[in-house]
Amino acid sequence: MNFNYPNGKRYIPREPDSENKLKKKKNGSYSNRGMTLEEDLNETNEYYRVRNIAVIHKKPTPVQIVQVDYPNRSAAVIKEAYFKLASTTDYNGVYKGKYIDFEAKETQNPTSFPLKNFHQHQILHMEEVLNQGGICFVILRFTRYEQVFLLEAKHLLTFWERMTNGGRKSITKEEVEQQGHQIPLGFQPRIDYIKIIDKLHY
Amino acid sequence: MNFNYPNGKRYIPREPDSENKLKKKKNGSYSNRGMTLEEDLNETNEYYRVRNIAVIHKKPTPVQIVQVDYPNRSAAVIKEAYFKLASTTDYNGVYKGKYIDFEAKETQNPTSFPLKNFHQHQILHMEEVLNQGGICFVILRFTRYEQVFLLEAKHLLTFWERMTNGGRKSITKEEVEQQGHQIPLGFQPRIDYIKIIDKLHY
Repeated sequence: MNFNYPNGKRYIPREPDSENKLKKKKNGSYSNRGMTLEEDLNETNEYYRVRNIAVIHKKPTPVQIVQVDYPNRSAAVIKEAYFKLASTTDYNGVYKGKYIDFEAKETQNPTSFPLKNFHQHQILHMEEVLNQGGICFVILRFTRYEQVFLLEAKHLLTFWERMTNGGRKSITKEEVEQQGHQIPLGFQPRIDYIKIIDKLHY
Repeated sequence: MNFNYPNGKRYIPREPDSENKLKKKKNGSYSNRGMTLEEDLNETNEYYRVRNIAVIHKKPTPVQIVQVDYPNRSAAVIKEAYFKLASTTDYNGVYKGKYIDFEAKETQNPTSFPLKNFHQHQILHMEEVLNQGGICFVILRFTRYEQVFLLEAKHLLTFWERMTNGGRKSITKEEVEQQGHQIPLGFQPRIDYIKIIDKLHY
């Protein structure tokens, strides 16, 4: 089920989607129990939250509400609404008093990570967060290899600039491996990205 | 136009609402140009953002999407969705590297601020943010007096505990005046709450 933003861009669902929950992998296995990156991160964040490690939440999907029905004595029903492009990244919160901010994306591409996964507003937001002293990064998953990397926003911004200067429209997998940090995948937590933050900032 | 959450609670719109934009005040004046607290805060945050003072955004209203139509070659239309209760506060972001988190509410009540403006999930979230070293507070507006206060979350939690121990279900205006900090209202920015944060934390 694919649908588009008002600007014609394809909408990629970010709320837990029952259709994706038991998505069978290309190799025929149910490795990682078919969880999406978002589900893995939500469970990771819940793990951090209940153990007082960090308080990080995913922001709700932005929706432009046009029409609401409100039958008497029952719940209001939104009858017409549209998906909006997010003006910030999807995840933020606090770790040891510091502001944490990130976006998470996955690609089926085996050799590179397409920059079209991000949009100009998000890049601008990341610059603003860095200028304000926040900790900002992206979590990139190469689904074919089940590999997940943390790439600091300062590096993403450099690759974005390369593209706007006429360079390639993606980050090669080698570049992600060299400049990013692979996050070991586990059971609890699934994607322990705070461990990388500890190495980089503490 | 009032409507309710699935749990029967009244929905108070948090997205800019055209109906409220030119709301005439009880006293017949259009003082403060009839802006809602949310609009004033959004403009204040935009003022901070463009001047690199702080990066603080309102989170989107959480919505449970049930049905989406996706006509070919046009925008996806959400045909059925419901308002969800937020699990966190509405505003967060970064100021000088520090995590900032707050909720904003207004009351018509002239003598006290009803605690029913907050819900248990938000109180829990504020506790978690404080435990993690974040800066957390509420912005309270007494609409009849056009007075806006910043009350640190630690004080709100004390009043909440008093209520759960059988005490009063509101904070008196005197208590807000004594334990909170009145925010002078201006033109640019409208509600300069960062000034209070500077006094309290820097």
